[in-house]
Amino acid sequence: MKALVKHHRGYGAELQSVNIPKIKEDEVLIKVKATSICGTDVHIYAWDGWSQGRVNPPYVFGHEFSGEVVEIGSKVTSVKTGDYVSAETHIVCGTCPQCLTGQYHICKNTQIIGVDTQGCFAEYVALPAGNLWKNPKDMPYDVASIQEPMGNAVHTVLAGDVVGKTVAVIGCGPIGILAVGVAKAAGAAGVIAIDVNDYRLQLAKQMGAATLVNSKHDDPLQVVENLAGGNGVDVVCEMSGHPTAINKGFKMVTNGGRVSILSLPVKPVEINITDDIVFKGITVQGITGRQMFKTWQQVSSLLASGQVDVRPVITHHLPLEEFEKGFDLMIKGACGKVVLQP
Amino acid sequence: MKALVKHHRGYGAELQSVNIPKIKEDEVLIKVKATSICGTDVHIYAWDGWSQGRVNPPYVFGHEFSGEVVEIGSKVTSVKTGDYVSAETHIVCGTCPQCLTGQYHICKNTQIIGVDTQGCFAEYVALPAGNLWKNPKDMPYDVASIQEPMGNAVHTVLAGDVVGKTVAVIGCGPIGILAVGVAKAAGAAGVIAIDVNDYRLQLAKQMGAATLVNSKHDDPLQVVENLAGGNGVDVVCEMSGHPTAINKGFKMVTNGGRVSILSLPVKPVEINITDDIVFKGITVQGITGRQMFKTWQQVSSLLASGQVDVRPVITHHLPLEEFEKGFDLMIKGACGKVVLQP
Amino acid sequence: MKALVKHHRGYGAELQSVNIPKIKEDEVLIKVKATSICGTDVHIYAWDGWSQGRVNPPYVFGHEFSGEVVEIGSKVTSVKTGDYVSAETHIVCGTCPQCLTGQYHICKNTQIIGVDTQGCFAEYVALPAGNLWKNPKDMPYDVASIQEPMGNAVHTVLAGDVVGKTVAVIGCGPIGILAVGVAKAAGAAGVIAIDVNDYRLQLAKQMGAATLVNSKHDDPLQVVENLAGGNGVDVVCEMSGHPTAINKGFKMVTNGGRVSILSLPVKPVEINITDDIVFKGITVQGITGRQMFKTWQQVSSLLASGQVDVRPVITHHLPLEEFEKGFDLMIKGACGKVVLQP
Amino acid sequence: MKALVKHHRGYGAELQSVNIPKIKEDEVLIKVKATSICGTDVHIYAWDGWSQGRVNPPYVFGHEFSGEVVEIGSKVTSVKTGDYVSAETHIVCGTCPQCLTGQYHICKNTQIIGVDTQGCFAEYVALPAGNLWKNPKDMPYDVASIQEPMGNAVHTVLAGDVVGKTVAVIGCGPIGILAVGVAKAAGAAGVIAIDVNDYRLQLAKQMGAATLVNSKHDDPLQVVENLAGGNGVDVVCEMSGHPTAINKGFKMVTNGGRVSILSLPVKPVEINITDDIVFKGITVQGITGRQMFKTWQQVSSLLASGQVDVRPVITHHLPLEEFEKGFDLMIKGACGKVVLQP
Repeated sequence: MKALVKHHRGYGAELQSVNIPKIKEDEVLIKVKATSICGTDVHIYAWDGWSQGRVNPPYVFGHEFSGEVVEIGSKVTSVKTGDYVSAETHIVCGTCPQCLTGQYHICKNTQIIGVDTQGCFAEYVALPAGNLWKNPKDMPYDVASIQEPMGNAVHTVLAGDVVGKTVAVIGCGPIGILAVGVAKAAGAAGVIAIDVNDYRLQLAKQMGAATLVNSKHDDPLQVVENLAGGNGVDVVCEMSGHPTAINKGFKMVTNGGRVSILSLPVKPVEINITDDIVFKGITVQGITGRQMFKTWQQVSSLLASGQVDVRPVITHHLPLEEFEKGFDLMIKGACGKVVLQP
Repeated sequence: MKALVKHHRGYGAELQSVNIPKIKEDEVLIKVKATSICGTDVHIYAWDGWSQGRVNPPYVFGHEFSGEVVEIGSKVTSVKTGDYVSAETHIVCGTCPQCLTGQYHICKNTQIIGVDTQGCFAEYVALPAGNLWKNPKDMPYDVASIQEPMGNAVHTVLAGDVVGKTVAVIGCGPIGILAVGVAKAAGAAGVIAIDVNDYRLQLAKQMGAATLVNSKHDDPLQVVENLAGGNGVDVVCEMSGHPTAINKGFKMVTNGGRVSILSLPVKPVEINITDDIVFKGITVQGITGRQMFKTWQQVSSLLASGQVDVRPVITHHLPLEEFEKGFDLMIKGACGKVVLQP
Repeated sequence: MKALVKHHRGYGAELQSVNIPKIKEDEVLIKVKATSICGTDVHIYAWDGWSQGRVNPPYVFGHEFSGEVVEIGSKVTSVKTGDYVSAETHIVCGTCPQCLTGQYHICKNTQIIGVDTQGCFAEYVALPAGNLWKNPKDMPYDVASIQEPMGNAVHTVLAGDVVGKTVAVIGCGPIGILAVGVAKAAGAAGVIAIDVNDYRLQLAKQMGAATLVNSKHDDPLQVVENLAGGNGVDVVCEMSGHPTAINKGFKMVTNGGRVSILSLPVKPVEINITDDIVFKGITVQGITGRQMFKTWQQVSSLLASGQVDVRPVITHHLPLEEFEKGFDLMIKGACGKVVLQP
Repeated sequence: MKALVKHHRGYGAELQSVNIPKIKEDEVLIKVKATSICGTDVHIYAWDGWSQGRVNPPYVFGHEFSGEVVEIGSKVTSVKTGDYVSAETHIVCGTCPQCLTGQYHICKNTQIIGVDTQGCFAEYVALPAGNLWKNPKDMPYDVASIQEPMGNAVHTVLAGDVVGKTVAVIGCGPIGILAVGVAKAAGAAGVIAIDVNDYRLQLAKQMGAATLVNSKHDDPLQVVENLAGGNGVDVVCEMSGHPTAINKGFKMVTNGGRVSILSLPVKPVEINITDDIVFKGITVQGITGRQMFKTWQQVSSLLASGQVDVRPVITHHLPLEEFEKGFDLMIKGACGKVVLQP
């Protein structure tokens, strides 16, 4: 089969012909209908420090997809051939204290599909049956493929109440843009989108952001001050990873507010704990992965009911062969989600 | 001034000329711009058993309104002349265990404006400053007047999470219809509206209900079974007060679901606690009043941001003089909210 | 092996010699060290209406136990031979909406060990590996055996906050008595134990109840009134199943309080929804099973840390051969937990 | 009357004779029975940078006390002469968004008794009636006086669940020591007390800490590793304000755990957000003041029920005249709470 292989310990990837994977008795073989590029894939493609320490080429990478089950292992009962599925990316142990109390998304022994195992940038992918999520028959392939990153957005935004609240989304990569749509769908009174990329701010606007701040030109704190009359925003979704932006997030949140952090700053960040956390009585949450499978239920419902329309976020569809173009768009920030079709 | 007076211990009410009320040092005098009819007012008007035991004619009734502050008491600092306000209807003690822990809406010594005190079906009303809620300048008078009943809807719907969930609203009086709109704004995947009145079901549809069930013709349990594939609904907002409807609400909710009851059944209701509450592991909530003032903040935000458009619910505008027509509409169920202009 | 068999469709049970069960590849064989009698076992023994409709003699019943793993199936990785274990009684499907969101205890397809499957009143029991809970090596066999019913108590009491609160436990069977100890350990300011059986009230006292009410002689509502100065109790744990007691529970809870129901009334119960639920703004919870495995972690921690000392509750130890004596004690209410040793 | 006056902009304070304060119509005059020294008072006494920028000598400082109401203002209805009271230290505005939603403890316009207003290191103190908390008649004066700092401990520990959990208290000043007792009373399975002061660690032991770590001699991370088998602690209560200790707190908390920060680090602290917050999926809470008056109810209940016995924490009783000795003890860390009797 055709597969996009991280072929060497260096920049780039290569389209190769590889064997269709064999499944184990608790696994399932899926014919991939659509797959999409995640920021993590870009790290691997560009061979940054993190990926040098984590992944082991050569292997097939990629983890966002939708597809059809074409073969099931002998022990599999939860799905059947012909089912239309996507998959949770975290393969968890099931036996650590976190798993035993249903907090699978913070399992201490997590393996990540397409990072620690063979991925889905290919015609077929083999996955544990327990990771699959069944899609409604009428959900478009591209939409189904981006449920996983939308899950990150849902997990972040819905880690607390947003109804009637003001929400700032700091960092409008694809997940930030999706977070704008989720916040609006969940009843946010106003969403402020903050980024340095006007193209992505316009996508945020299409998803429902009422206020756009290009922080190269305007100070987000000043904008919030003007909007909220000194009261700040109720919720900050931090998706930029930038130290200055993070600190401005803490400054702009109101007393008793919430700062939910999905981003992964590359170095420790100085925080004014006394003024920005303690005296304000705020809550800070680290957000990773998706609640299994509560978040998937939320994502699926929001899409199926039309509460969130993700089509503006999916800006590019390319055949798998044009992967270089897709990765270039991601690196430049000149896109929303890029979908590849094997 | 002109005022609608519950003038005798019997059916009806009378438009009279009465003195403009004098304010105490912690009170405020308000010129009423719009006032609206609540179901409670209909009970008083029709002089049912409850009102016979509770209210003391002659007095001015009514409690939903919006208006302008025209005079403030010597101790009042929280509002000023010219402010545009509505008011929370519960006057609370501030010293019972519930008040001391911020649960003012379930104060054990609550007095209700227009029931236990002089009300707002008049040109002017005098109220404690602590009960006032400031409205945005551009909120229409009629919309501002129905914030109080919308608060009941918000309190009920948002007593738990609804994002991506299915919500059944049983009983589509004005508050039920508002609940439909609130549930949609807060991200409900689908809202099922249930009533015996097709006119009101159509209003529910305008507010966003995806499924309408006239329970005179269709069994709500059958409809839910067909929709949800045997899984039931996630949330039931019970606003009918009818024993059969209440029991069907318990039957249709999914395991682990929520039944929030705002209605006031006139007699004890037989409940199958074992099958419908315990084995299903559900949560049942009694909902009364509005959280002070969390609910008002939510209402105000949902209206100001356009997340909920209540205009379809406000079906009639009448001068105060035509109160009989308004009460007749309410008694017949041939209206949404009826606004009276003094 | 020796086993207590529900041998016919009638009263009683019979000690028989049966084959040691064979395990499937995802199962484990356990040598039973201690087993204890649950109220459910008494229903089956006495052959009441519920058991006539549910269980299929002949089979080995019983579901509370502790023991040692002596053999594991080929697919089992989570436990090993020699492990000291107890087991969750609910065998769940893992694929219904409740399971998919981690609410296994309200799985729609639950099977119960010793009810729907072969149980543990025997020298050996075969169970799915996924149901096992590992015990600390130094936990006594009898204590480990009653973790399952203590889980019911923990699930009920800790379904909300009890720190500094007054808690009424209505119905002091073994689980009620355990609930008293759990409430005290979790910081309850005062626990009121209510029953008609003085022997069991004394056990409740040993577990920390500050107030004992024999409702044959005293009106619990009057006692609460005197204690709480009209404020009621904060939390009611309903474990009696009796309609009058249930209604008194609703009457005694304070505005905004919590009524958590673990009992299974045999018939529908009339509830004054308006006065006792809605106007009081209370929360009613149906409690079933144990959260898997959050409740088990809580039970295990409370026991291992000595926060709850369950020894007063375990009133009788008998060899399995003397099962008749054990069941007689249970039927008469003349015991706490009865432990049988195979 | 006799009063301890912060008399100049420099080190120390002076016992002076000053006028008994006059009360306003919403205030109450209280005869002080006991007062206790807070760390904040030590800052003011020692005239550190914070106090130089905040307080305006000469004035009476001090804010922890218990006493008897001897005179009430004309508008006061919530207390009466002869009542035995303590007081919440935060005087709040009642009209900001936080106050309007019951989050008084994070009011944006808070004034602090004894910092921004005249305090209680005196024979009499005048206070707003709304700040008073009524004590049970049989609560000792010294115990009643330390309810305010115990409120900080309660607010921190009970900002989440602790039943059956391991709790690390980092920093064992008086509030840290109280936190140990609160955690045990609320069902914590084990409490680890961490400080550099052996005297205070011994007080923590008396309050129920199972593990003491003097971080001058042992690495808290290593101790936790040994205890928890690599799983970390469930809850960290950070009360040290020290950057290294704070970072170790983040390292020792388990995935999905909680870090509640009451301390006020004097400078920004570098935090490894990616590894210590995001990937672990933890929650960080800023804790300030006491929830008004939920926390007071909890404190009062825990004391009245005997769930927490604070006597080991109150190590010194001195007449007000010996204030210098009291402040010296506090500065040296050679005490728990120091009570002064005017």
